Amino acid sequence: MLMSYSVDAQKTQIMEKKIDSILTLLTLEEKVAMCHAQSKFSTPGVPRLGIPEIWMSDGPHGVRAELKWDSWDYAEWGNDSITAFPALTCLASTFNPALSKAYGVSVGEEARYRKKDVLLGPGVNIYRTPLNGRNFEYMGEDPYLASKLVVPYIKGVQENGVAACVKHFAVNNQELWRDHINVEVSDRALYEIYLPAFKASVIEGGVWAIMGSYNKFRGQYCSHNELLLNKILKTDWDFDGVVISDWGATHNTYESAMFGLDMEMGTGTDGLGTTALNHYDRYYLALPFLESIKKGEIDEAVVDDKVRRILRLMHRTNMNLNRPWGKMNNVEHHDVARKVATEGIVLLKNKESFFPIKDKKELTIAVIGENATRSMTLGGGSSELKPQFEISPLEGLKKRYKNAKILHTMGFASGPSAYDEVLPSPYNADSLKVEALKLAKKADVVLFFGGLNKSHHQDCEGDDRKQFKLPFGQDELLDDIIALNKNTGVILLTGNAVEMPWLGKINGLIQGWYLGSIAGNALADVISGDVNPSGKLPFSFPVKLKDNAAHYFGELSYPGDSINQYYKEDILVGYRWHDTKKIKPLFAFGEGLSYTSFELKNFKLKQKTYTKDENIIVSGEVLNTGGLDGAEVVQVYIGKPKSKVKRAVKELKGFKKVIVEKGETKSVEITINVNDLAFYDESISDWNLEKGSYIAYIGNASNNVTEKIKFEIK
Amino acid sequence: MLMSYSVDAQKTQIMEKKIDSILTLLTLEEKVAMCHAQSKFSTPGVPRLGIPEIWMSDGPHGVRAELKWDSWDYAEWGNDSITAFPALTCLASTFNPALSKAYGVSVGEEARYRKKDVLLGPGVNIYRTPLNGRNFEYMGEDPYLASKLVVPYIKGVQENGVAACVKHFAVNNQELWRDHINVEVSDRALYEIYLPAFKASVIEGGVWAIMGSYNKFRGQYCSHNELLLNKILKTDWDFDGVVISDWGATHNTYESAMFGLDMEMGTGTDGLGTTALNHYDRYYLALPFLESIKKGEIDEAVVDDKVRRILRLMHRTNMNLNRPWGKMNNVEHHDVARKVATEGIVLLKNKESFFPIKDKKELTIAVIGENATRSMTLGGGSSELKPQFEISPLEGLKKRYKNAKILHTMGFASGPSAYDEVLPSPYNADSLKVEALKLAKKADVVLFFGGLNKSHHQDCEGDDRKQFKLPFGQDELLDDIIALNKNTGVILLTGNAVEMPWLGKINGLIQGWYLGSIAGNALADVISGDVNPSGKLPFSFPVKLKDNAAHYFGELSYPGDSINQYYKEDILVGYRWHDTKKIKPLFAFGEGLSYTSFELKNFKLKQKTYTKDENIIVSGEVLNTGGLDGAEVVQVYIGKPKSKVKRAVKELKGFKKVIVEKGETKSVEITINVNDLAFYDESISDWNLEKGSYIAYIGNASNNVTEKIKFEIK
Repeated sequence: MLMSYSVDAQKTQIMEKKIDSILTLLTLEEKVAMCHAQSKFSTPGVPRLGIPEIWMSDGPHGVRAELKWDSWDYAEWGNDSITAFPALTCLASTFNPALSKAYGVSVGEEARYRKKDVLLGPGVNIYRTPLNGRNFEYMGEDPYLASKLVVPYIKGVQENGVAACVKHFAVNNQELWRDHINVEVSDRALYEIYLPAFKASVIEGGVWAIMGSYNKFRGQYCSHNELLLNKILKTDWDFDGVVISDWGATHNTYESAMFGLDMEMGTGTDGLGTTALNHYDRYYLALPFLESIKKGEIDEAVVDDKVRRILRLMHRTNMNLNRPWGKMNNVEHHDVARKVATEGIVLLKNKESFFPIKDKKELTIAVIGENATRSMTLGGGSSELKPQFEISPLEGLKKRYKNAKILHTMGFASGPSAYDEVLPSPYNADSLKVEALKLAKKADVVLFFGGLNKSHHQDCEGDDRKQFKLPFGQDELLDDIIALNKNTGVILLTGNAVEMPWLGKINGLIQGWYLGSIAGNALADVISGDVNPSGKLPFSFPVKLKDNAAHYFGELSYPGDSINQYYKEDILVGYRWHDTKKIKPLFAFGEGLSYTSFELKNFKLKQKTYTKDENIIVSGEVLNTGGLDGAEVVQVYIGKPKSKVKRAVKELKGFKKVIVEKGETKSVEITINVNDLAFYDESISDWNLEKGSYIAYIGNASNNVTEKIKFEIK
Repeated sequence: MLMSYSVDAQKTQIMEKKIDSILTLLTLEEKVAMCHAQSKFSTPGVPRLGIPEIWMSDGPHGVRAELKWDSWDYAEWGNDSITAFPALTCLASTFNPALSKAYGVSVGEEARYRKKDVLLGPGVNIYRTPLNGRNFEYMGEDPYLASKLVVPYIKGVQENGVAACVKHFAVNNQELWRDHINVEVSDRALYEIYLPAFKASVIEGGVWAIMGSYNKFRGQYCSHNELLLNKILKTDWDFDGVVISDWGATHNTYESAMFGLDMEMGTGTDGLGTTALNHYDRYYLALPFLESIKKGEIDEAVVDDKVRRILRLMHRTNMNLNRPWGKMNNVEHHDVARKVATEGIVLLKNKESFFPIKDKKELTIAVIGENATRSMTLGGGSSELKPQFEISPLEGLKKRYKNAKILHTMGFASGPSAYDEVLPSPYNADSLKVEALKLAKKADVVLFFGGLNKSHHQDCEGDDRKQFKLPFGQDELLDDIIALNKNTGVILLTGNAVEMPWLGKINGLIQGWYLGSIAGNALADVISGDVNPSGKLPFSFPVKLKDNAAHYFGELSYPGDSINQYYKEDILVGYRWHDTKKIKPLFAFGEGLSYTSFELKNFKLKQKTYTKDENIIVSGEVLNTGGLDGAEVVQVYIGKPKSKVKRAVKELKGFKKVIVEKGETKSVEITINVNDLAFYDESISDWNLEKGSYIAYIGNASNNVTEKIKFEIK
């Protein structure tokens, strides 16, 4: 350990010396040039010295298609069709860090093959409201879960000599007014809820880049924010990588120079739009930055620090001769995508074993709903992908079901511009419904593929959803379908929770996320029973919007008054809110069914009392009591009933996914460091490990705790 | 030597083993895909295995700007402004292989920085007629000179892990009808005149790629030509690299598969144009090739051989982890460009020391002519460049002459579409002339910058010149200028010889070529005397077109009847023709003046008689008898007066450029291998070293031989 540390330290020293020597060769103009974009997705190198350019690609679900130099139009290349991986919400639902590693390795390999030096992802903004249009790109509502899953993703990407760029730092928890809204949140919620996944990315993941978000935090834009970037990120966490602005998130030369931004990327941040000649020169970190340094308003050491960071990123990526070459569209990547998808799909309702549906001759399945055939890799904003192929749910089912008769109709239509309720001209809502009901009536089983899509005001960057209910008349259609055929299962393809007024009347419910290239196969795997589902919700589904903490406190909490917003729920985000306020969710964080049944048994803690720095070891057994092999996620939450501060009833502090064959028993051991039970004490502006009694809640969902064990911290 | 050979052999063996093992992993479809373009300038890799794509750029004078994926439109990137180097005719005029090496290294570094794996150049087609629109991209009329200069260029490029692609193989000596003309030429002229520079590229230069030309040779397209590619190139010369078709030069699947083509590049070679979807799949070496293999019409070993060659190129370029990173627009490249330019500029007339023109207060210089300000990097076809800057002759002079008064006027205009004699609307030929004559009259000295340009029907790919005389009324304008001011010097910017009816009436003449980024500085260097010119013509300037060998024999010799053409002059190309037929050229091959004077003295051969394999060592002294330091090119031609076959009077077999300070004497030694005196004997289809008496002609130009020395081969 010491050995490997000193080898690493030596390597670091050599790299830093090289960087020092390069810095002395650069002119001020060259250094400033490296601090801002030269095109939509690249920054300049120093051609005369052979210092390479940095090329970036949007992520995080795959490598985006090539864009033109200076516009958002696609370049129409023929070599940029990639593997689309499942959305990060799905990855979070796997509760499987090993799969996150495989995901990171795979998408990193594709980025590398595509000659990208930085992949703009993953996203770890906390799921605060189901209306946030970008939740599908994030890892749910729990900081511990997001932390455990983001670290291996980053390591996987960076193994390829491609920098991950964790985003969006920070408190960018809605799309509405994201370019200007000022977020006010307590220190406690900031440190306990909104920052941990970023902290893990830096300290455990060793991430090489981080993206500053659009919004303001405490009055200062996040892409140049003294507290977030200079103090927390670069001082407290000792981040040695590059802070990249979100595209157009920079607003001021002095602030971006002084308050932690290293690289300005954007879209006409000079207000001249993208058509102005040499508009990149007018970026805040371009000529105005150069002028400020020349005038002595900003010290040259400021640009040196930024360039040092950029050169460090280069040494780790495009100046690293030993990085591998990458791969793309290989079977292994398709396998990873399928594995993540099938492990992330969450079975939420299964009345009378509606699922799995066995393939048999006499069976007629009516597949209804636009989402059975609609591409879910197109749209959504910057995470849009151009996959080599995308298997729709209908295709997946048709491929899997060789005996059953599959009927299909669209049922509803989202409209050409894909705004809510706008119907495309060739479609008439009534005629679509008539056809759907005809099919529903004659089928043995109805599979309704609904949910949201990747259009504006749905699960899409740039704006929030306008409503919690399903769009395009799906609720009404479902009611009518169920009236004709009770044997109906719903598969929701969304990145968000939705209202489900029809839930009591259906037999089966699957949360199917956005699953990328192999969506249809993965869904067919689970629907057919080829794969026994094991996904767990990474966020709570409230019954109604008001049950969600952010919405409970009214407009100033969400979405704000367009200038400010106040995170009034404080630390009580997601299940912390539902638990503490005893507001029962429709589906709870950590919830997810299996085709088999499990029993958690004999769970215990090794000790009754602990002191600082010690590990709590939770051990027990998982029995597969059903008739199928399967996987279960043991979840350990910890609460402190009597605390000097407000506490959530319980918080996730450990989990483990175990595969257990039918009739078998598996031992499980989960380790929790005592220090991780500290709260952020605003009175001392530091973490505080409170002494006294704690309770460990052990179960397979936040709302299904089977054992409670008391312990003490002394 | 043996040591290094066996290390190399071992490396080769390892590489070949790796290639073997990769080949076994590839599907037939993947192998076929590697044999044709996926875009205008790239071929696909195998993404699933991490085998990279191959990216190419037009050359040879610099790296071309980025183009769109599938059109000839520029992609409008902001990072592709490069260093434009002087045209290859200028490089040839330096008679300096060390400069060719520096040129190759530099352009290769720029290609590497631009992430190109193959640079499409250099060109070594023999200068046969001054009407060939593409002569400026080649290295003149002499196979020995071209051979000696192409080898270091290739080595320089390839040091960067960038493949050179020598072109256009073969007998592509005119642009008119290049896409279909069938060339008939004797074996002797083929081997002695048209192939040697290619042979040197392969055997001495170790070039990794070669481009098949558009035209036919003996009835078969050159890009799939059994004799040229399979027999001569791949068998006789043992070429192990990749044969790349010129863009759209492929015409038949079976022929391209079987007759030596490895990689089909192009422009709608399927006849569907570039807009057809997946038109690359319809290339001759795409689906039709795949189908032929599947049907058993072509053996799979055929594609394996092509892919083996392509993988070999990859191991040498984009799969070579140790290749350097390249550089661009650095001072060293500008210095190389300037050095090549100043050493390549040829002083042809200098009556009463018209040049150099000293900078003094009382001097008024009239700079007249469109070529004083016109960009010569734009246009010309595929060699068109987008330089970071291009210093025009006028700018260069203005920068150099701080005391003299420089007046400037356009004098003539080439017209917007740049066809001959078409005037742009804002200009009136008469008013331009009036202004020019006004300036000429009041100036002490006139510098007329004329010649050709890079437009269609000038020095430009795709068509030939329509006339030997200067276009745009330059001859008439010059006459009028000289009538008013006899103190006139002409600087011709061309890649070709032109008619010069006014030659007797001017005082100075400089052949200024196309000089790239630093054109103006280089011309000012020579005009001012900062650099003493040392360039020598790499081709003959005939007095009139009919004096040129190709034109002497009428239309069937040039340009042919649109179907066939016959190289009736046979081996008597260029100075070989002028010498042998005693047709005095206007300026001779190898000719070029200096501001100082030289004397060649005491030249002798070590032996009087030689046998096969021996070296002839020619030695002597060069005296600088003038008042300035300078450089002279000692040229050794050899002739065989009594031969059983037709012979040119003499042929260049050795040269050396020596720098001699004023008043100094430098010893020179030139080595010629006896075997290089063989002629290609059609009666035995092999080289034949004739015994008997030979003469060595030693001088500083093909028409200025100062010593003749007899020797014997036994």
